[in-house]
Amino acid sequence: MSQDRDSLRATARAGSNIAFLKYWGKRDAALNIPLNDSLSMTLSDAHTTTTVAWDPDLKLDEVYIDGERVLDRRGVRVSKHLDRIRAQWYPWHARVASVNSFPAGTGLASSASGFAALTVAAIAAYGEGLPDPDELSRWARLGSGSACRSIHGGYVEWRAGTDHASSRARLFMPGDAWDLSDVVVLVSGHPKEIPSSEGHAIAARHPFMAVRQQLLPARMAAMKGALAARHLPTFGELLEQEALEVQGIMMSGTPSCLYPAGLTIDLIHRLRRWREDGLPAWFTLDAGPNLHVLTESRFAPDVVERVRSVDPRLECLVNRPGGPVTLLSHHLI
Amino acid sequence: MSQDRDSLRATARAGSNIAFLKYWGKRDAALNIPLNDSLSMTLSDAHTTTTVAWDPDLKLDEVYIDGERVLDRRGVRVSKHLDRIRAQWYPWHARVASVNSFPAGTGLASSASGFAALTVAAIAAYGEGLPDPDELSRWARLGSGSACRSIHGGYVEWRAGTDHASSRARLFMPGDAWDLSDVVVLVSGHPKEIPSSEGHAIAARHPFMAVRQQLLPARMAAMKGALAARHLPTFGELLEQEALEVQGIMMSGTPSCLYPAGLTIDLIHRLRRWREDGLPAWFTLDAGPNLHVLTESRFAPDVVERVRSVDPRLECLVNRPGGPVTLLSHHLI
Repeated sequence: MSQDRDSLRATARAGSNIAFLKYWGKRDAALNIPLNDSLSMTLSDAHTTTTVAWDPDLKLDEVYIDGERVLDRRGVRVSKHLDRIRAQWYPWHARVASVNSFPAGTGLASSASGFAALTVAAIAAYGEGLPDPDELSRWARLGSGSACRSIHGGYVEWRAGTDHASSRARLFMPGDAWDLSDVVVLVSGHPKEIPSSEGHAIAARHPFMAVRQQLLPARMAAMKGALAARHLPTFGELLEQEALEVQGIMMSGTPSCLYPAGLTIDLIHRLRRWREDGLPAWFTLDAGPNLHVLTESRFAPDVVERVRSVDPRLECLVNRPGGPVTLLSHHLI
Repeated sequence: MSQDRDSLRATARAGSNIAFLKYWGKRDAALNIPLNDSLSMTLSDAHTTTTVAWDPDLKLDEVYIDGERVLDRRGVRVSKHLDRIRAQWYPWHARVASVNSFPAGTGLASSASGFAALTVAAIAAYGEGLPDPDELSRWARLGSGSACRSIHGGYVEWRAGTDHASSRARLFMPGDAWDLSDVVVLVSGHPKEIPSSEGHAIAARHPFMAVRQQLLPARMAAMKGALAARHLPTFGELLEQEALEVQGIMMSGTPSCLYPAGLTIDLIHRLRRWREDGLPAWFTLDAGPNLHVLTESRFAPDVVERVRSVDPRLECLVNRPGGPVTLLSHHLI
C-alpha cells in the first residue's frame, strides 16, 4: 500500500436511538436478522464519536472507550466487527477511540450509536469512499442490530428482511416533520444487567412470541400512521402497549428478565396521573430501568419539571430527533 | 313458616386464599366459570366472619361490613348473592354483618373469604342443614369466583369445569402436609383500582390468553407435583413465572392494567437478591400492589425481618395454611 499511515484515519459521530416498535428476538443471531420490523427515533443528545486509525504495523487492535483502554468483551466485540470490515478491505489492525456523550452507567445503550459510528469511521478511514446508506446500515447491523437504525436521522424503520441483503434500516420520516422529544429519566439503582444476546434469546423462545409477531404488522401500520399524522395520543397509546408487551414477555420469560426498577414503575404510575391532568406524554422502556418519556418538544420542560418534583436528584436527558451518522474528520477532507 | 325468627341466624368464618396458579379470565361471566383450573392456599390469618339473619318482616337486605352499613355496589353484590340463595330456599330478606380480620384498604381481597362465609352463613341460617362441600363451593363461586376455593382449607384446586355442576373447588392437599407461609407485604400507595370484573374481561380478550391456556395444564401438573413433593425451589419458580405471566398480560392489555407499585417491583428485585444469598422465598402477586412472599414457615421470620430492613414501616401479615370454612354459631348448635 502506498498510502501514508497517518491518512488512514477517520472520525464519525452517530446518535443513539429509541425504538418505538422494538427489536427483540432474532431470526438469525449471527447476522442480527430480527424477527420483526422496528421503528425508532434517532436521538440528538446521546451520541458516540469514534475515531478509527488503521495501522498496517499494529499486531492487535487497541480499543479505547471514554478514554480507557478496554480489554474485556466490549473490546472483543469491537475487534470482531473490525474483522468483518477488514476482511472486505485490508487486513490491518486499528486504534479505535470511542467517546460517548452520555456518562457511562446511565443505562443508555451505547451499542447502537457505537457500532454505527465505528462502522462509518472504519470504512471511511480506508480513504476509498463510503458505500451508500443501505450498505452502511447492513454493515452496522452486523456489529449491533439496532446500530443499523442509527445510520439515519429522524424517524427510522428497520425492515427485518430475511437475509443480509434485505435487512437494513431506512428513513421513515425526517426529524423536522414532527418535533418529538424523548425525555430520558435516568433511573439509578440498576437491577442486574442481562446481556442483550441473552435477552434476545429469552424473547425468541417465549411462547407468546409467535402471537406477538402476528400482532406487529398492524401495530407498525398504526404507529406509522400516527407518526405521519402527528397524532400524539394514538402514537402514545401504541408506544406504551408495545413497551409493556415486550416487558411482559421478558419478565415472564425463562429466565425471568425484569428490567424496570421500582422507581421506573412509580414514575409510570405518576406519568399516567399527569396525563389525566392534561400532560400529553407517554412512555417507552428499553432493556434497562430508564424511563423514556415521549412528548412534543414544547411539553418536554413540563415533563422534566414534574419528574424533578418527584425527586430533585433525578436527571433527565432531553433528546429531539437527531441527524444521521456524520463524518467529522477524514483525511480526504 | 313455624320457625322462630330469632333462630334464622348463623355465623360462618372463611379464610381468604392466595392463588398459586391464577383465576384470571372467565369462560362464563354470569356463572363465574373460569377459563382455567386454579390452585390456592387458604390463609390462616386473613379471614371474614359473617352473620346472616333472615327476617321475613324485612323489606330490604341490611348489609354491614366492618361495622358500617354499606349501600354501595358492595351491598348490591351481597344482595344479589342472597337473591340466588333465597330463590332456592325462602324469599326473605336478611341482616348481614361481615367483619374482616384484616384492615380495610390493605388491598387484600375480601371477596373470596367474604362470599365463602356469606354463602355458608346464609344457607345455615335457614336451619335446614348444609349441602356438601362441592355444593357449597358452587354456591360460593356464584358470589365471587375465588370464594369457591375458600370453602376448603389447606391447598385447594378449583377445577374450571364447563358449567355450574362441574365448576367447583376441592381439597388438593391438607394444610399440615406442608407448612408454607404467605408473608403478605402490605404495599401502600395503591395505584388506581381496576374492578375485578374489568380485569377478567381484559385478560379474556388479550391475544396472549389462548397461548396461556395451552401452557397451563403442564404448569398445573408441575406445580401440583412440586407441592406434593414439597420441593420449594421448583414450586417457587413456577409461582413467579405464573405471577409474572398474568401481570404481563394485564399490563399489556387494553386498557393497560398495571397492578404493581414501584415498591412492589423494588421488593421483587430485593427478594431475588436475598434468594441469591440463600433465603428460599419466592413471590406471587394478586390484583393489587401487595407482594405475597411464599416460603416454608421456618423462614417466614427471616422474610419479615428483611422486609422491615427495607423500611421499618412496612407491615407484613404472616399466613399459614388456614382451615376450611367454619360455622361458628348456629341455632341448631
